[in-house]
Amino acid sequence: MTVVMPAGVAVARDLVGPATQAAIGRLSPGVRRVATYHYGLSDAEGNPVSGGSGKALRPALALLSARAAGAAPERGVTPAVAVELVHNFSLLHDDIMDGDTERRHRPTAWTVFGVGAAILAGDAMLALANDLLLEEMAPGGPWGARCLSTAVQRLIAGQGEDIAFEKRDDVNLDECVQMAGDKTAALMACACTIGAVHVGARPELAMGLAEFGGHVGLAFQLTDDLLGIWGATEVTGKPVRADLRARKKSLPVVAALTSGTPEAAELKSLLNSPGELTEDDLVRAADLVVAAGGKQWAETEADSRLAAAARCLDDAGLPADVHAEFIAIAEFITARQW
Amino acid sequence: MTVVMPAGVAVARDLVGPATQAAIGRLSPGVRRVATYHYGLSDAEGNPVSGGSGKALRPALALLSARAAGAAPERGVTPAVAVELVHNFSLLHDDIMDGDTERRHRPTAWTVFGVGAAILAGDAMLALANDLLLEEMAPGGPWGARCLSTAVQRLIAGQGEDIAFEKRDDVNLDECVQMAGDKTAALMACACTIGAVHVGARPELAMGLAEFGGHVGLAFQLTDDLLGIWGATEVTGKPVRADLRARKKSLPVVAALTSGTPEAAELKSLLNSPGELTEDDLVRAADLVVAAGGKQWAETEADSRLAAAARCLDDAGLPADVHAEFIAIAEFITARQW
Repeated sequence: MTVVMPAGVAVARDLVGPATQAAIGRLSPGVRRVATYHYGLSDAEGNPVSGGSGKALRPALALLSARAAGAAPERGVTPAVAVELVHNFSLLHDDIMDGDTERRHRPTAWTVFGVGAAILAGDAMLALANDLLLEEMAPGGPWGARCLSTAVQRLIAGQGEDIAFEKRDDVNLDECVQMAGDKTAALMACACTIGAVHVGARPELAMGLAEFGGHVGLAFQLTDDLLGIWGATEVTGKPVRADLRARKKSLPVVAALTSGTPEAAELKSLLNSPGELTEDDLVRAADLVVAAGGKQWAETEADSRLAAAARCLDDAGLPADVHAEFIAIAEFITARQW
Repeated sequence: MTVVMPAGVAVARDLVGPATQAAIGRLSPGVRRVATYHYGLSDAEGNPVSGGSGKALRPALALLSARAAGAAPERGVTPAVAVELVHNFSLLHDDIMDGDTERRHRPTAWTVFGVGAAILAGDAMLALANDLLLEEMAPGGPWGARCLSTAVQRLIAGQGEDIAFEKRDDVNLDECVQMAGDKTAALMACACTIGAVHVGARPELAMGLAEFGGHVGLAFQLTDDLLGIWGATEVTGKPVRADLRARKKSLPVVAALTSGTPEAAELKSLLNSPGELTEDDLVRAADLVVAAGGKQWAETEADSRLAAAARCLDDAGLPADVHAEFIAIAEFITARQW
């Protein structure tokens, strides 16, 4: 299955990119160079590099969100920059907490600039996101800021749960879904509604878009977890079964572990075995996740979340082109390519 | 010299304390226990303890600030809680960056709960501060939030400069004053104006109060630095000359080092000598700071900042009792007790 990136994503990158660079330019010099590096706009010495950060999915959703409320996409630029700043604040801090040394094929910021500098840069990005939303004096500026800080609280709760889950071996599927809702879906929901909120949309529209984004966010996490086991290297940029090698308690794995099937017990003892897992172990583990129904569950759940997301837009009264672009992005980020 | 704590500080503690606890109670469970411990409201196991955090100086200033605009002190409670959350967010994160293992005679939060949990808790407190200011829908809610996030940006810039200065030995006095302005005075200025801003004060009043707080903040830092060398143990809770032992580049020390006097050179080589400084070294270093004029400079500067602060209030048209209480707190936190 080949999936083409929706046109709106490239448009968003063109509109939001310069505004993001301008925003980062307002940070104080010490944190600015960390943020610039993290965003992929400079190398460790501060020299500009081309390429830049990520896929701009959240910014694309934020621009659409402004358009959903009848505003020009330009009016969604500030909310888009703010959401992306928060996303990157959380990546910066999470990399420290998780001890991750690589992101987007580059050394993580804390390994280059030190833990202290990376903490500070994240803090500054979070505060800046907020300031941007308020200073524009948009009709819904304060509401947009609240929408974002609510998402931040859920993001933090989700990261806290994620860390706590690593130390437990009795995590159930509901808890994992809740954690994914906090850690991933909350900010996605925020991206889908904040543009509309910022320009003063009516509450029903804002809530419908948030609900859409929440479902899409969960479908996205389920897909990401599926790709983490069965995704092709050329799609994920990681070796096949990377999440199993890291013994990550992703959603399909927990679904399998808590399935009550005979395979669940074998999977559990395999993942708990000491030492590095061999290629044979990984193949066996993936087969066990399938046999225990974990893969099937995740696929079905992702599909039903996507369907639920689509239903949220049906009565929202969106312009037809905006509606279609929301759906295109949702399908793009939940496409299972393997 | 004996200095009595102004009555407003105890009043602030009574008014703001319960609101702070309620705010912390809204954090997600994982970060809540870190915040509760950091605030001195519970022990490491989560059992409630009495005592609680700090001197409530910033909350007292925030309540006064609301009263300065003719509002009841209760209307300043939310801004007071928000400022104190930001102050504690920065302490939590700074302790990690600086590797400090003790604060207020207790192990710092990161040593108890881990770096990750302490980063997360700080993040959550910063986001919460913002949310509190916006959710009240006060006349100046968004302005108050901007006032706070501007202070956060300066706080972060100041902490960044502080870390950078530790690695340099050519820091000049202007840079140090600027750093203290960012790291300490910005949040003090915010505390002095945010209550007024929150309740919708006229801009001239808000700006006058901010200017007052900026001067008081610098006088406070100068005093703190003087006490760090000459303060009595029963006042500071630290051994005499503790800042010299830690070779801290505090304002009187940098004033001495950059004085161009013969003592400056001796002080520099003493502070750069390898190994731990002996008691004799510390006594000599303190004498050198005096002889090089560093102590005198800091005292004069603190006094003139305090005088400048007082002048800011002269034309602000404050109620007489509020005016007197502002001055009383300013004098209290800049009293040189040794």
